[in-house]
Amino acid sequence: MVHCLIIGGAGMLGSGLAARLARTGKLGDRAVSRLTLFDVVAPGSIPEGGAVSVGVKTGDIARPETVEALVAARPDVIFHLAAIVSGEAERDFEKGYRINLDGTRNLFEAVRKAHESDGYHPRIVFTSSLAVFGSPLPDVIDDDHILTPRSSYGTQKAICELLLADYSRRGYFDGIGIRLPTICIRPGKPNAAASGFFSSILREPLAGLPAVLPVDPSVRHWFASPRAAVGFIAHAATVDSALLDERRNLTMPGVSATVADEIEALRAVAGDSAVELIRHEIDPAVVAIISTWPKAFDARRAEELGFTADKSFAAIIEAHIEDHAADRETPA
Amino acid sequence: MVHCLIIGGAGMLGSGLAARLARTGKLGDRAVSRLTLFDVVAPGSIPEGGAVSVGVKTGDIARPETVEALVAARPDVIFHLAAIVSGEAERDFEKGYRINLDGTRNLFEAVRKAHESDGYHPRIVFTSSLAVFGSPLPDVIDDDHILTPRSSYGTQKAICELLLADYSRRGYFDGIGIRLPTICIRPGKPNAAASGFFSSILREPLAGLPAVLPVDPSVRHWFASPRAAVGFIAHAATVDSALLDERRNLTMPGVSATVADEIEALRAVAGDSAVELIRHEIDPAVVAIISTWPKAFDARRAEELGFTADKSFAAIIEAHIEDHAADRETPA
Repeated sequence: MVHCLIIGGAGMLGSGLAARLARTGKLGDRAVSRLTLFDVVAPGSIPEGGAVSVGVKTGDIARPETVEALVAARPDVIFHLAAIVSGEAERDFEKGYRINLDGTRNLFEAVRKAHESDGYHPRIVFTSSLAVFGSPLPDVIDDDHILTPRSSYGTQKAICELLLADYSRRGYFDGIGIRLPTICIRPGKPNAAASGFFSSILREPLAGLPAVLPVDPSVRHWFASPRAAVGFIAHAATVDSALLDERRNLTMPGVSATVADEIEALRAVAGDSAVELIRHEIDPAVVAIISTWPKAFDARRAEELGFTADKSFAAIIEAHIEDHAADRETPA
Repeated sequence: MVHCLIIGGAGMLGSGLAARLARTGKLGDRAVSRLTLFDVVAPGSIPEGGAVSVGVKTGDIARPETVEALVAARPDVIFHLAAIVSGEAERDFEKGYRINLDGTRNLFEAVRKAHESDGYHPRIVFTSSLAVFGSPLPDVIDDDHILTPRSSYGTQKAICELLLADYSRRGYFDGIGIRLPTICIRPGKPNAAASGFFSSILREPLAGLPAVLPVDPSVRHWFASPRAAVGFIAHAATVDSALLDERRNLTMPGVSATVADEIEALRAVAGDSAVELIRHEIDPAVVAIISTWPKAFDARRAEELGFTADKSFAAIIEAHIEDHAADRETPA
């Protein structure tokens, strides 16, 4: 019987993971008995637990005593998904380091102290990011490529990967870090993030709304559906860490696709009329940012460990349509 | 006129750098007017400054106010060489993180605050280590190879590299990190470090003393003389950082040599009688540790930036003999 703690339980992936764990009551072949959702704010909706007891806590991971209180319940699996996002970490240097680095270190330290006191040794799943990579990059990035982040967010994620590996090697906990692809189709409204268009050029036309494409259709990037990303996070909790050989951070598999591939997948599902809702208007600032991003990975280590990507961009769109069928049935 | 601060000024490299700066009065083509040596203990000897004013301070870099006081003098160049060594960082987890990570972050934060107050923007030269690399490794490691340290010391160095790059990218200071090869011939007595034999099998026989070789002569590793390492550190202070393209951490060039190469270089200089002082006695623990270490690098970026390695292992031995001529003239 497994007690899972989700730090970042109110976010897109945290609430998706909570819904999955509550619905299935399973993590691999183990039964989930208890689920604690932690975030700086309470989640918008708390999943019906059925056999799973679901609790909610709020607080600030930058406060060591807050994290110590979470660890005091000795959860068997800790999913650490909480972070200040890249734009905010770039705008507010101190806040980014305080939450993304010091918050994570507070968690790792609280677990280390618990380990030293009673041998506590949880699995910790940490979500890292492609932002740990920075240009110049080869067209296909392998598992041995250096991390040279070009953002404070990417730096903080790369540092936490190193800490996770060291604390695990020392035996304080059993950690695994997973670098998630860009999530597509991200639910919600269009936003100002440079990556936003990858989702909005699909999500908006699928809802009959216009969208703007700010880059050339030849731009290539690395994607996973929210459903695949939640699957990666859940699978990471069950991987036999002896197979990691102390290299505990893994690039997740994904779908390498161009914007043109996205558009053709949209056309196949929703026809020319949907594609015509995309207005092409180059934004040199977005072009410049995107030009430094990874295009594709050879994510061999993760594949060998059973992490499974979406099958195609068409499958990413189908997952979106299925997962949001309920939304569409509700009048706006 | 340049004011240099050496943090770690009492160590082997710090005192070598201090002696060089005091003797030449130059850093590249700039005159050094002032030299401040900082360490947890006072240096054994303080170099005669001539035209250079030499000051000594002691304290603990883990205390933010100590580092703020050093930064208050607004040194133009800060050499940050201080660290708890790898064995101690592995034995004492908290102390290693406190000095090697938090101490460095205290320095970077003090400089950031000074930058925000008056635009202060020093060059910071940080000495990293080959310990940032971990197995599995290719025979020749290039500048794009991932850092997967297998020690807390290597983890702390890799994290500081990431911080240095991010603080530099943000414009808080102008940093450069250099990964030093294993220093050979290390002066002093034989010690318990796993790498100690690389130096002791030369240093001891050159002084007419016996030495133990605990690994097979086919073992290959990456070396620099203390003189070359001091040269790297001084050169790093003068490199045009615009040429780094925000990839501010560099593997230093070195001499890739086997133990057999070392022994033949010793024979060439000191004859068979010196080589006969080496007793071969395999130590499986040392063999296991050394087996995970890097063998050779393609340090192209550093070479293109003008960092120059020793020419050969024979040159490393010659440098040792020259630099320690004075020691040998003094009766024991």
